[in-house]
Amino acid sequence: MEQKILDEIKNQDYSIILKRIQDSIKHEISTNNTNGVIFGLSGGIDSAVIAYLCADVIKDKTTAIIMPDSKISPESETDDALKIVDELKLNYKLIDINQIHKEYYKILEPQDLALGNLRARIRTNILYYYSNSKNFLVLGSSDKSEYLIGYFTKFGDGASDILPIATLYKTQVREIAKLLGIPEKIIQKKSSPNLWLNHEAESEIGATYEEIDSILYCIIEKKISKEQIINQTHIESSTVEKIYQLYKNSEHKRVTAKIL
Amino acid sequence: MEQKILDEIKNQDYSIILKRIQDSIKHEISTNNTNGVIFGLSGGIDSAVIAYLCADVIKDKTTAIIMPDSKISPESETDDALKIVDELKLNYKLIDINQIHKEYYKILEPQDLALGNLRARIRTNILYYYSNSKNFLVLGSSDKSEYLIGYFTKFGDGASDILPIATLYKTQVREIAKLLGIPEKIIQKKSSPNLWLNHEAESEIGATYEEIDSILYCIIEKKISKEQIINQTHIESSTVEKIYQLYKNSEHKRVTAKIL
Repeated sequence: MEQKILDEIKNQDYSIILKRIQDSIKHEISTNNTNGVIFGLSGGIDSAVIAYLCADVIKDKTTAIIMPDSKISPESETDDALKIVDELKLNYKLIDINQIHKEYYKILEPQDLALGNLRARIRTNILYYYSNSKNFLVLGSSDKSEYLIGYFTKFGDGASDILPIATLYKTQVREIAKLLGIPEKIIQKKSSPNLWLNHEAESEIGATYEEIDSILYCIIEKKISKEQIINQTHIESSTVEKIYQLYKNSEHKRVTAKIL
Repeated sequence: MEQKILDEIKNQDYSIILKRIQDSIKHEISTNNTNGVIFGLSGGIDSAVIAYLCADVIKDKTTAIIMPDSKISPESETDDALKIVDELKLNYKLIDINQIHKEYYKILEPQDLALGNLRARIRTNILYYYSNSKNFLVLGSSDKSEYLIGYFTKFGDGASDILPIATLYKTQVREIAKLLGIPEKIIQKKSSPNLWLNHEAESEIGATYEEIDSILYCIIEKKISKEQIINQTHIESSTVEKIYQLYKNSEHKRVTAKIL
């Protein structure tokens, strides 16, 4: 694939972007009369970026909730999340969602996809439990790539009050992560929503984030046709078509319920 | 309070409205390539209206889920819900959410409001579980009165794909309920979200639905000032102010997450 478009995507002034996001979070906390922010910390890059950028400016108003499902979440992920809160000295809670998930499982007919998405929804219930009881704003950690292709669970990790990094493509999140001093290990590892065992984002989507970002950037920012995208990016037409369809078909996940 | 405004609100051609809603639901099922619709049936008027209007035109594509919490839900509510599915011969499931709620309770610090809202979120998780596994659209049963003052749980009963009766104020829902042949007992009983024991909507809000609807109608449809509302409705100024503030302050519950 063509490197030029990817360079164009990555070539941003991340210190200005970071300051804007941090100022906006502080503004939202004060205009909404809330006590702070809360978010789910998985050990992956997106929530790590949220943790680092909050710790930098509103550490005492920030709470991270680490919510593995001990049946399926890799221990290394939880360890990475724990290292982050330790390193940043962030308020946190560690909650294993396995027993809760089991309780739903007892009464619902098993179906793999639904059981996976249920994990994301249980995590959101817990975040909103604290949002209710402590008057916190819930930060969602979707990046622009995942947001645009609908790679999140509707009313699961897709549910939040504020999306601090939804203006940044995944390849841009990796750049801002470097600026924030996030360990290379977290930046480099394969993304996973951890909804089931060995769940891996790029293989589930069927494209690399470099491809996804190049295609989305051409659709959203350059507003060019699928044929032009194929010509300019040299990405396989089937991949371009797939990402285009994911973008189109996920619209319902980015809007509120339809009023009839 | 002034009856004239209330008469103006109620004076609609409900058979035309009903047909529009039913046609729209059928249209959504087919354009979204889904197998049908699913919704939570509480025994209250709003979800009863959803049940009746669906049973009328798409009975074989409709599933109702009755989800009491046996610890706090009145048995009479569950009985009313069961009578509805029996009368309409609707597909349904009866799921007690108490054990699931208990499992969250074990790990979260108790707080009454948060524990109440959690019940609404557990119910939504279950609806979306079936939405995922059976390819159903989730119907929300918020009416316009509750929608506008934010009288719903964010990402709980406020979460759905389609809102069939959110164009109808509660006093209008009561009229369409009569047209649908819903038993008087269900139409007349006090509204309750059943988030805690003896939970009652009008006493929690601090106004009757006749007052709420008159005030909202003046704000939204007549677009008049608070002073004019007080003059025209003869409702106490403190009540007008309260509903106005509920409307304004609940905006975040009617929009998607803010992208920073």
